[in-house]
Amino acid sequence: MKINEILGGVCAPKGFKAAGIHCGIRKNKSKKDLALILSEVPAAAAGVYTSNLVKGAPVVVTKRNLQDKKAQAVICNSGNANTCNSDGIEVAEKMCALAAETCKINRADVIVASTGVIGQKLSIEPIENAMGELYSALGDNSEAANEAIMTTDTVKKSVAVEFELNGVKCRIGAIGKGIGMVCPNMATNLIFITSDVAISGDLLQQALSEDVKSSFNMVSVDGDQSTNDTCCILANGLAGNVTITDKGADYKLFARALSYCTVKISRMIAKDGEGATKLIECNVRGGKNTKMARNVAKSVIKSSLVKAAMFGADANWGRVLCAIGYCGENVNVNSIDVTFRSRFGKLDVCKDGYGIDFSEELAKKVLSADEIAINIDLKLGKCKATAWGCDLTYDYVKINGDYRT
Amino acid sequence: MKINEILGGVCAPKGFKAAGIHCGIRKNKSKKDLALILSEVPAAAAGVYTSNLVKGAPVVVTKRNLQDKKAQAVICNSGNANTCNSDGIEVAEKMCALAAETCKINRADVIVASTGVIGQKLSIEPIENAMGELYSALGDNSEAANEAIMTTDTVKKSVAVEFELNGVKCRIGAIGKGIGMVCPNMATNLIFITSDVAISGDLLQQALSEDVKSSFNMVSVDGDQSTNDTCCILANGLAGNVTITDKGADYKLFARALSYCTVKISRMIAKDGEGATKLIECNVRGGKNTKMARNVAKSVIKSSLVKAAMFGADANWGRVLCAIGYCGENVNVNSIDVTFRSRFGKLDVCKDGYGIDFSEELAKKVLSADEIAINIDLKLGKCKATAWGCDLTYDYVKINGDYRT
Repeated sequence: MKINEILGGVCAPKGFKAAGIHCGIRKNKSKKDLALILSEVPAAAAGVYTSNLVKGAPVVVTKRNLQDKKAQAVICNSGNANTCNSDGIEVAEKMCALAAETCKINRADVIVASTGVIGQKLSIEPIENAMGELYSALGDNSEAANEAIMTTDTVKKSVAVEFELNGVKCRIGAIGKGIGMVCPNMATNLIFITSDVAISGDLLQQALSEDVKSSFNMVSVDGDQSTNDTCCILANGLAGNVTITDKGADYKLFARALSYCTVKISRMIAKDGEGATKLIECNVRGGKNTKMARNVAKSVIKSSLVKAAMFGADANWGRVLCAIGYCGENVNVNSIDVTFRSRFGKLDVCKDGYGIDFSEELAKKVLSADEIAINIDLKLGKCKATAWGCDLTYDYVKINGDYRT
Repeated sequence: MKINEILGGVCAPKGFKAAGIHCGIRKNKSKKDLALILSEVPAAAAGVYTSNLVKGAPVVVTKRNLQDKKAQAVICNSGNANTCNSDGIEVAEKMCALAAETCKINRADVIVASTGVIGQKLSIEPIENAMGELYSALGDNSEAANEAIMTTDTVKKSVAVEFELNGVKCRIGAIGKGIGMVCPNMATNLIFITSDVAISGDLLQQALSEDVKSSFNMVSVDGDQSTNDTCCILANGLAGNVTITDKGADYKLFARALSYCTVKISRMIAKDGEGATKLIECNVRGGKNTKMARNVAKSVIKSSLVKAAMFGADANWGRVLCAIGYCGENVNVNSIDVTFRSRFGKLDVCKDGYGIDFSEELAKKVLSADEIAINIDLKLGKCKATAWGCDLTYDYVKINGDYRT
């Protein structure tokens, strides 16, 4: 039942190739802006999408193409979100058609995604002109594809794992992008997951929908819910395991391996939040139910004041209490404990809703780490949740003060 | 039916005196930290409070004292919120007792409020020692009281108006503080309103509760809902008008005059938001109902990405659409128009949900003003709302990165 990390990203599972090139959507020629992922054979596929009413055209087209729970390729550009454009659907469909034609697959088996600025028309021309080059570049190139979907991301976000289902080696790989407009309650930004596991489309969708509740939906960078968020998974069955068709032991192990990948990418997205210098992990226990634990955790990591305090290494725990108090859950204020923890130590700051004395010196030390946990015990029940966010910094303002130019 | 602005703040209405002094809660001796407002006679009184479950002790005590809809004095300190302290209620009650004793009034007729850092014990000693000096300072000193309730506020927030009820001159005055932890859905931070109008306590409460829905509840600085927000009004009847006991013409004019004051203070709070350089006013029309219009307006002014774009004078209207899309209201994305407007001009950026070409030069000019309107037409009905916020700047991060030290 072991899950081992391996190299290779989305190309780690059998039968997947990837490519990432610069096609000209971005002015900077050294920045890749077009990615392709292709499975040798048609795959079971599932997706979760932004719940924003303003949806990017690619989201609309991808949802339609995934209705049959099958796909074979992903095409994705960065530099332009193809959202709020009158010709958006047409352009997204054309991207699918180009990918299908080039890869000689069915155009309804193409997942399309775009990320970047909203409300500027996306010209199909650079994409059309680059299809030959993109196809030629297909290979063990998960990193290049990962680079091509990045916007203001400063690091690539990739993971792959290997595990055995009844003695058969199986793999899951994933790449993602995060950064701004990242908020709980959605499948955050763009995540593409590949697997060579054999699983029914229905169960794949169930596994993904369940997974995002405790992974991508628990991440917040700035509380802004993007219009283009898409998380898709393709499982092509080439590992040769007995096809998963019920929620037995194989499904559970697959779900655990999937969760390993999605939580890892979630943490990477939070840590690489726009301008962020610190990963903030909020662990809540003692919730009456999971919803309560999740809402408390999300409220804390979303608070601008908590985020700014973490940037300043200021143990201003009153702001944590404040964020719990307005999260909409019926907590008992007088049974809340709060502890800050990092690799530099542990600091109890609040017991039963009231402040306790602590050393400001130790506080500065604990909060100077680049990964900080805010541990909260609500003492009302047995349910837990974890959410991931980041600090609020000068650079967040700088990056977002003039994003378009 | 005219409402005229006059000078005097909370001392403009007949029979009110105020004082503000430095008592020693703050280390900086040049910063006043204790305020008192006193009515010559007991007054009808009403309040609205934070809906945060974590409530400052003064909020709890004030709510209790206002149950009989009567009050005669307000005591308020800055520098410490007296929140999340095990002895908080005791200290808040002691503040009421001290004010009552000094002013020779009933201790249940005292409104108490505190603002500042959460979770540090508030010593009663400096307050107790200063009561004589505070009482001696009572006079036409609305400005001093206003100064004493400020935290990181950079300007005093004060207004007073005069109007006639059946030929009798009446007045309303108000002082407020805003700054951080300011978020819609509450009576924002501390606002004290005085009036010499004669009105029943019940109608005064109704007028205030109705008013805040379109004034203080429509302000957001950072989306963090404070634990200590309190807006109280005292109406002592000394103007000599026929007591308002029904919702007739006199009530309506009083409500209009009250709204004049609260909207003015709301705009001041938004414009003086922590680190803010710009007031952002979001005007929504065409809502199916008022709730829809309000939620759209609030979602836009709360968006960190919209706020950062306004700071950078970047006409990134896609972020406005994005914030509308996740506000939870069932808008029609394809019937939304967006216009930016300031004293430097008007810029149409989005028509029926799609981008329209505009001059980047004009955009920079319009958005370089210190007051910017984001006008949104949902084209679904006749309901309107306005919300006020500010831009997100480096200084917000700086101020909040290390607030306690």
